[in-house]
Amino acid sequence: MDYYSSQISKLIEELSRLPGIGHKSAQRLAFHIINMPEDQVKSLSSSIEQAKKNVRYCKDCYTLTDNDLCPICRSDKRNKKTIMVVENPRDLAAYEKTGKYEGVYHVLHGAISPMLGIGPADIKLKELMIRLEGEVEEVIIATNSSLEGETTAMYISKLIKPTGIKVSRIASGVPVGGDLEYIDEVTLLRALEGRVEL
Amino acid sequence: MDYYSSQISKLIEELSRLPGIGHKSAQRLAFHIINMPEDQVKSLSSSIEQAKKNVRYCKDCYTLTDNDLCPICRSDKRNKKTIMVVENPRDLAAYEKTGKYEGVYHVLHGAISPMLGIGPADIKLKELMIRLEGEVEEVIIATNSSLEGETTAMYISKLIKPTGIKVSRIASGVPVGGDLEYIDEVTLLRALEGRVEL
Repeated sequence: MDYYSSQISKLIEELSRLPGIGHKSAQRLAFHIINMPEDQVKSLSSSIEQAKKNVRYCKDCYTLTDNDLCPICRSDKRNKKTIMVVENPRDLAAYEKTGKYEGVYHVLHGAISPMLGIGPADIKLKELMIRLEGEVEEVIIATNSSLEGETTAMYISKLIKPTGIKVSRIASGVPVGGDLEYIDEVTLLRALEGRVEL
Repeated sequence: MDYYSSQISKLIEELSRLPGIGHKSAQRLAFHIINMPEDQVKSLSSSIEQAKKNVRYCKDCYTLTDNDLCPICRSDKRNKKTIMVVENPRDLAAYEKTGKYEGVYHVLHGAISPMLGIGPADIKLKELMIRLEGEVEEVIIATNSSLEGETTAMYISKLIKPTGIKVSRIASGVPVGGDLEYIDEVTLLRALEGRVEL
């Protein structure tokens, strides 16, 4: 790689360490950055540093935030008695985009995966149980519909059941606009099992 | 987007301005960066700033470098009498990877495109002509095989011909390993026209 100068090579190397960025994309990004106006470059690099420096877990729901509490936990318009459990902040964002959910969240930062050696102690589960000691009426488990997500959902529901708090799981089924022909059998069976009377 | 805190949103916004990075990828990158060890984040942001600050054009070939001359122009193992003209530093890198080219380069930083309003004065063409006043024996035009690349190649060859310096164009044809069945007609015709005796 010595046909690039060392600082270009270094930037390409740094960029190609990011997830989903291969060597070619890193090259393209590096040259783009070098050609960007100086103030835009400053702004990019400082937002990287600032985000890393100031972002921490929300004291209540453990999503990432730059304050003690995230905007959702801080809001008095949200119903603190309903907690939706998600795997990560991106899943939280996905539900927030629907604009219809009025409760709060709990971010696990992962899912139980015996394959990857991730156990219940490796995700923010203890923290969830502590929250349940307050006034909580329902826990909605919205972990992914993957093997790990399902395992985590089962584990959490068994943990919560004895407390008498209502536990629910988001429905799985055919996605809206989905063409049955192209949907896997497991999903089709789930959709059948979860059928609702009209 | 106020379900993320402002510093996360800002980072996502900055990242999604980069080419080929949509909102979803920017989200994934942002969360990855926030979870990276502090020294890696520092290293990423400083290499962005350093590259922008120190990278400039090579005084001879106009590729990007952090010195007056790029490593290729600086090397005394390269034949300065053969100049390969490429559109951008990535194309230079592609040829360098072959490890077989021993001449030097000239980077145009673009190609002539009447559609986009890019004329001969907008690329480093004048700079190439100045170089030709020195001792140059051959100019190999390796602009892309696109409409713009071909236009640029034609233009340059017409410009150089009167000087008596040899001008050549890299061959176009069927890529190695390419399956004729899936190759467009123009390429097939080019390959036919450019056939070599065995």
